[in-house]
Amino acid sequence: MKKIAIDLMGGDFAPAKIVAGALAFAKDNPDVELYLVGIEKNFKEISLPSNCRKVVVEDYLPMDVKPTEAIRRKNSTMYQSCKLVRDNVVDAVVSAGNTGALLACATFVVGRIKGIERPTLAVPIPTKDGFCILADAGANIDVKPFTLLQFAIMGVEYAKFMGIKNPKVGLLNVGTEENKGTKKEQEAFRLLREKFGESFKGNIEGNDINMGKVDVVVADGFHGNIAMKTMEGSAKLIIEILKSNIKKNVISALGALLMKPVFNKLKEKLDPRKYGGTFFVGVNGIVVKAHGNSDEVAIYHALKVAKQGIEISLTSKIEEAIKDVWNSRDSGN
Amino acid sequence: MKKIAIDLMGGDFAPAKIVAGALAFAKDNPDVELYLVGIEKNFKEISLPSNCRKVVVEDYLPMDVKPTEAIRRKNSTMYQSCKLVRDNVVDAVVSAGNTGALLACATFVVGRIKGIERPTLAVPIPTKDGFCILADAGANIDVKPFTLLQFAIMGVEYAKFMGIKNPKVGLLNVGTEENKGTKKEQEAFRLLREKFGESFKGNIEGNDINMGKVDVVVADGFHGNIAMKTMEGSAKLIIEILKSNIKKNVISALGALLMKPVFNKLKEKLDPRKYGGTFFVGVNGIVVKAHGNSDEVAIYHALKVAKQGIEISLTSKIEEAIKDVWNSRDSGN
Repeated sequence: MKKIAIDLMGGDFAPAKIVAGALAFAKDNPDVELYLVGIEKNFKEISLPSNCRKVVVEDYLPMDVKPTEAIRRKNSTMYQSCKLVRDNVVDAVVSAGNTGALLACATFVVGRIKGIERPTLAVPIPTKDGFCILADAGANIDVKPFTLLQFAIMGVEYAKFMGIKNPKVGLLNVGTEENKGTKKEQEAFRLLREKFGESFKGNIEGNDINMGKVDVVVADGFHGNIAMKTMEGSAKLIIEILKSNIKKNVISALGALLMKPVFNKLKEKLDPRKYGGTFFVGVNGIVVKAHGNSDEVAIYHALKVAKQGIEISLTSKIEEAIKDVWNSRDSGN
Repeated sequence: MKKIAIDLMGGDFAPAKIVAGALAFAKDNPDVELYLVGIEKNFKEISLPSNCRKVVVEDYLPMDVKPTEAIRRKNSTMYQSCKLVRDNVVDAVVSAGNTGALLACATFVVGRIKGIERPTLAVPIPTKDGFCILADAGANIDVKPFTLLQFAIMGVEYAKFMGIKNPKVGLLNVGTEENKGTKKEQEAFRLLREKFGESFKGNIEGNDINMGKVDVVVADGFHGNIAMKTMEGSAKLIIEILKSNIKKNVISALGALLMKPVFNKLKEKLDPRKYGGTFFVGVNGIVVKAHGNSDEVAIYHALKVAKQGIEISLTSKIEEAIKDVWNSRDSGN
């Protein structure tokens, strides 16, 4: 039986929406045992299905908690959820809590895969024909070229997990020529070409991400974070411009009504909830970060992502892929 | 009489569209004398209006030219256009050629304003209620905290030139808290707060840019370039999703037809041509970079921007603003 822990107190809509999503998932997935990690009052007035277990702790972390504090507050729902993975009580953990705090707990409580310098937040980004994987999307803001290579390797494994065969890799840069960027990008370019050969499509620019030029976009967390968040802002701007102009005119409003299925398609395509949650890839266990503003649908999907991660043994796949690089690196030196 | 040089051989659609835009502008602006800098064959079969002058040179730069090469090829249309500014023959220059090459010519041929470490490419970006200025948008990819302060000062003067009173300033970062980012951003945060006081709104994130949280977004050229280009890609993705789904269904197509004025509004709002051209701010003269894919409308607007720059004496305004900082810095040390 697959076992997943869920942090009931993480997320803007905790605990109500988290509990609701968890219970709905438990009902549909009798082959999963769910460990609900919460504080005493989370469990009042709810009756748990037989495949749910109650784990009561004393503390929980606010959404603006610092990573260092997250590590110190050992009785929190987040810390204890991660500890269940480390102690092999569960196979995976899901939390919608603070990203930095969860990364800290993933890294220091669950631990890293041997050879991984830093786990990466690998995030699916919508493209014209599907999606691409952005690694890193903000977990590690200042990294070395070799860390970028590790992000690429983890991103590729993650892309394969998401169903992409022979993923194409690109490095996020300020131009497509080989000599673009700082020394860091230039050195990363060389490492990526050496490792991925034909699958490495060279440097890509910001406008190539959503166009789906590659399947795995490699970036340090600063660049990845700017790209990901700028996209959110642009989508919001466009939708607001459309909305405010539709209101100004009856004919446009009628047009918008007729176009409703199209707008729904757009909304669905851009909806981050569709992807449910994202892994901290490189952690020695499955840690799924659900979006901070997750509702019950998002939590349901995040749990599904965790379950799939268990089913395909994502952690050991990453471990194998990284081992290969280290071996070839050692033999090369 | 205001005098402007235009590089006829810069841009993807040079020379035809550049010539067309220049002639249209000359016709509407009899108070401007236009120096058309081109190669011999550009002037065949065109008759120049009385306020146009022909400047024939021997060389021109390809769009993928390296900055170092741009400086070496002294007989190119771009180099010679910039030289006309340096020699005070004209008051401003417009080119749609390669960005790096033009920056190099602006910096080394026209020269920098005293005290300016690096000129910045300051670009207007659409927001909910208007636009904001992004400085730097890709001219300088690796800079020091003090250079970011200079970008901010130049961005503020540019925002004022564009009609924004009391511009609010923000630093592009990976989170809003003061301690976010690398040491560079943390130090820049301190310098910006010291200089701008209440007008400095602290760190902003990628999604805040298009929402218009601030009027001047300060960033190094790497971050600025990623943000600007990612926006382009996102807008393109959304428009493509809408288009492809509209085609699938007659009712949606009818809806789209009724919504045409709304889509036109959107297009206008996102159209980079509207802003025409952008200054390399910090150069000791007015150098306007038009978009590489400028058509005649874009060139017309870029020339208009150059003319406005002359009218408000943008260069001396920047010079004054920078002098202030240096004075306060010197007295502080």
